[in-house]
Amino acid sequence: MTSTSTPAPTIADWRPLAASKRAALAQKIPPDWLLPSFLTSTISEASTQNVLSVPGACGLLSERELDLTTDYDATALVELMATRKAKSAEVVQAFCKRAAIAQQCTNCLTEIMFEEAMARARECDGFLEGEGRVMGPLHGLPVSLKDSFNVKGTQATVGYIANLSLPPAASNSTLVDLLLAAGAVFYCKTNLPQTMMTADSHNNIHGRTLNPHNLSLTPGGSTGGEGALLAMRGSILGMATDIAGSCRIPALCCGVKAFKPSASRVPFGGGVPPGRIGSPSPIAPVIGPVGRSVRDAELIMRTICTGNTWMLDENVLHAPWRRVDPVTRPLRFGLIRGHAKRPLHPPIARALHSAATKLKEMGHQIILLDDQIPDLYETAILAWKFFKLDPKKTAIEMIRKGGEPAVPSLKTAAFKELEGWEASLDELWDMNVNQKKVVKRYHEIFVGQELDAVVMPGYQATAVPHDTYGVTVYTVLQNLINYPSGILPYLKAEKELDQAFFKSDAAYEPPYAPETFEGMPAHVQVMGKPMQDEELIEILKVVEGILAE
Amino acid sequence: MTSTSTPAPTIADWRPLAASKRAALAQKIPPDWLLPSFLTSTISEASTQNVLSVPGACGLLSERELDLTTDYDATALVELMATRKAKSAEVVQAFCKRAAIAQQCTNCLTEIMFEEAMARARECDGFLEGEGRVMGPLHGLPVSLKDSFNVKGTQATVGYIANLSLPPAASNSTLVDLLLAAGAVFYCKTNLPQTMMTADSHNNIHGRTLNPHNLSLTPGGSTGGEGALLAMRGSILGMATDIAGSCRIPALCCGVKAFKPSASRVPFGGGVPPGRIGSPSPIAPVIGPVGRSVRDAELIMRTICTGNTWMLDENVLHAPWRRVDPVTRPLRFGLIRGHAKRPLHPPIARALHSAATKLKEMGHQIILLDDQIPDLYETAILAWKFFKLDPKKTAIEMIRKGGEPAVPSLKTAAFKELEGWEASLDELWDMNVNQKKVVKRYHEIFVGQELDAVVMPGYQATAVPHDTYGVTVYTVLQNLINYPSGILPYLKAEKELDQAFFKSDAAYEPPYAPETFEGMPAHVQVMGKPMQDEELIEILKVVEGILAE
Repeated sequence: MTSTSTPAPTIADWRPLAASKRAALAQKIPPDWLLPSFLTSTISEASTQNVLSVPGACGLLSERELDLTTDYDATALVELMATRKAKSAEVVQAFCKRAAIAQQCTNCLTEIMFEEAMARARECDGFLEGEGRVMGPLHGLPVSLKDSFNVKGTQATVGYIANLSLPPAASNSTLVDLLLAAGAVFYCKTNLPQTMMTADSHNNIHGRTLNPHNLSLTPGGSTGGEGALLAMRGSILGMATDIAGSCRIPALCCGVKAFKPSASRVPFGGGVPPGRIGSPSPIAPVIGPVGRSVRDAELIMRTICTGNTWMLDENVLHAPWRRVDPVTRPLRFGLIRGHAKRPLHPPIARALHSAATKLKEMGHQIILLDDQIPDLYETAILAWKFFKLDPKKTAIEMIRKGGEPAVPSLKTAAFKELEGWEASLDELWDMNVNQKKVVKRYHEIFVGQELDAVVMPGYQATAVPHDTYGVTVYTVLQNLINYPSGILPYLKAEKELDQAFFKSDAAYEPPYAPETFEGMPAHVQVMGKPMQDEELIEILKVVEGILAE
Repeated sequence: MTSTSTPAPTIADWRPLAASKRAALAQKIPPDWLLPSFLTSTISEASTQNVLSVPGACGLLSERELDLTTDYDATALVELMATRKAKSAEVVQAFCKRAAIAQQCTNCLTEIMFEEAMARARECDGFLEGEGRVMGPLHGLPVSLKDSFNVKGTQATVGYIANLSLPPAASNSTLVDLLLAAGAVFYCKTNLPQTMMTADSHNNIHGRTLNPHNLSLTPGGSTGGEGALLAMRGSILGMATDIAGSCRIPALCCGVKAFKPSASRVPFGGGVPPGRIGSPSPIAPVIGPVGRSVRDAELIMRTICTGNTWMLDENVLHAPWRRVDPVTRPLRFGLIRGHAKRPLHPPIARALHSAATKLKEMGHQIILLDDQIPDLYETAILAWKFFKLDPKKTAIEMIRKGGEPAVPSLKTAAFKELEGWEASLDELWDMNVNQKKVVKRYHEIFVGQELDAVVMPGYQATAVPHDTYGVTVYTVLQNLINYPSGILPYLKAEKELDQAFFKSDAAYEPPYAPETFEGMPAHVQVMGKPMQDEELIEILKVVEGILAE
């Protein structure tokens, strides 16, 4: 599943190195958990099959394991373990099994730690038994991690061949330590794109992750392994990173929920960066959860931000999680319906329209913002300029160092407008002024119109064919202005219903292919106010509730 | 009092423009409030006289006015007005008078708004009378402002000749609006240096502000007008800015208190920048109070940060002021005793030693950090590189545009090591890495040693002769790492007592001149943890109390 469309490498033969890493990973799946070859033989990035039913149908999971992995969110599962209605060992085993199945179907994992996880789960069970209390708010809970997190004893190649020669991590990422202290159990790490700057989770070590709803489509990126794993219910809660949408794109492609908090609330320390450190860009990468419910996002955010998180990471803002009241009043939502250069595909337009209609029906107000906001496409180009500030082009250099080809999506994820563009220190000042103007304008809109949140697309389409996702017009905005944002899956592409939202004069990009997209999850994105992650969580709960009805 | 030591201007004759501005300012002092010429004729930057007794001795203030301007801090004065024991009109009139005297002695003002202030004070009194409640937590309180704040109808030249042609401000700085809503009364703005990047508050419009303790010494900068005005008790609370010490340096030069909060807690919007906007530097300018007591700093910080300040300024972090308990346990203080390139003058070494001794005697712990911290001098150079990132050299261009000469301290305030240094985008990445290293190291020290705060000098000396202050080794650190910090005046230079702290092998810079410095206020600086401004306020109260004993 590795790319062969790019020129042959010039430095060393990376293929055996990558094959050896993949073989080592495959070895970590117990033979009992292997799918029969009649199932695996049909898996390919060209297949259009939906593999979501495989875990239930393959017979590898017991009824109890299917129940534990299917019928709960993390909050409920922690409650189940805290009240001794389930042991962490059985919960973790169930998720390990299901993750193994997800891996065989979608190629979503980069590291497998099933044995360590089972030992840890037994430790949690023993603690509860012995002490009569839970380890912490995540007691016994399996949590999956994007490959860029460091877990002691495990590699974090972040998809660079050059990193294959690095020894296993000697220490944990700060967040890993924090979640361990809260009782979490780590059992796998998940796939991502070479450079982490594309929406196709594809690299030359692990190859390409596939979308379990339709293997021929992208699971999104850069945290695409999490998206596929969660959709397969091989995880209940995963930790992602996001600098242009990397936590939200896999969620909207795979039909799960994501929460991108404001910058510097979740400790980012100790991970592996995909490029040069020391960027003068005002856009900070953030860590956020991908999962099944808004209350799970709240659980993990509260766990992370409670207490003195700054003690663990010098770059965390000391801004302890605030208690805010649930929403009991009508809310004012701004509505952004997209940009002419990336018009909404009919399924997304329908989902957005339906969501706005439902919110209105429930007494909330909708204020159309399309004509008030700064040009979304230009705003995204500005953001991407900030990602191109490194004169040393370190990410490209990392690829070169590994003697590996660039993955194809590196080309399609870039703005053509920035081809050949080179940053200068002088222009950086002007870029900052422009960034502040965008920040100011959204502030004026939120304050002037007394908005609580903005409902908008996270992407113009459902998941699309591999390597066609293109530029991230609708998700990079929230990084540029540092507003928190959540993705909620809502409706599915249904070509007959979607027809009403088809516009014959729209230049759909990538092309709208109703047959291909049929049944794929659609979504809405809800953007809150900066550093008011607490308030956004409450608003998301309201929207989640209304959309579920 | 304008500089004549630099080359004559080449573009236009700036002198009549400046003289006209100064004349307009002088006109705003009521004739009744003018000091007799036998007093004013002795005022000069070469005079070593102490003018602190002038307000009491000149006969212009009534007993009541002397009492109101002398015997209270802002917290007490607000209480006095709220309980109708004083009217805002009499309080404001007293401070206007005293500010007029301070201006005649030290040349500390740039804008006078006495008439507007009296009208506003009467408005406050009327409100209390009519509504039976105060306007807000600063009801009726006179507050002075650095010139860089915008007040509707008033100029904000920030000391550039080129800005003299600008019309009066059409709107208020965000903070000005916020404080007005809290009941504040604005009555004057205060002097600062050309470019705001020197510690001599000296420009070609208003000339040089003098230190009221000794007119031949600097009042510090860039908020030097506030320092002089507060020392003269012509203000009870002033608002300063700080990017390398500008709020703290005038406090330590003039014997008043200062508090530099963490970045982005106080709204910075709507002011006049001294240079180019859009800097990619990680060092953000902050606003902080200069005043008489730590509880006044708390009063103003709580007033500013309570509620949804973000609604007023898109760059404010939504981090509402937290209630923290007063300190009741022994504290752990780090102690930094200086750098060999800027050894502490004996009065400062004695003040620091005495403060540490007193803290220890009261049961607090002192941990010596000198050998653990990154090189302070190199750290300061790194910070100053960030101030030199503008390829367009906008500040220099502003001077050129006005056809005015540079003030002499622009040379002495610069690191010789950076002469000819030009920033590049590539080096900026490395500078950021180095900045993060410094941040990480101080974090390790604070966390590893379980420190509550660090006691250190804010400068190696008391106030020094004009144009000799030099580089800001001890105050720019807190900006580079974004730690909050306070200045507390403590002890005075007494050459006989200081003798014990004299080191014959120390290269004092600027030179130690015991006769010149005799009687000048010494100080300590107390640095807290980032975004824990609330905790630092409580710690400062403890130190303030112990040092007062």
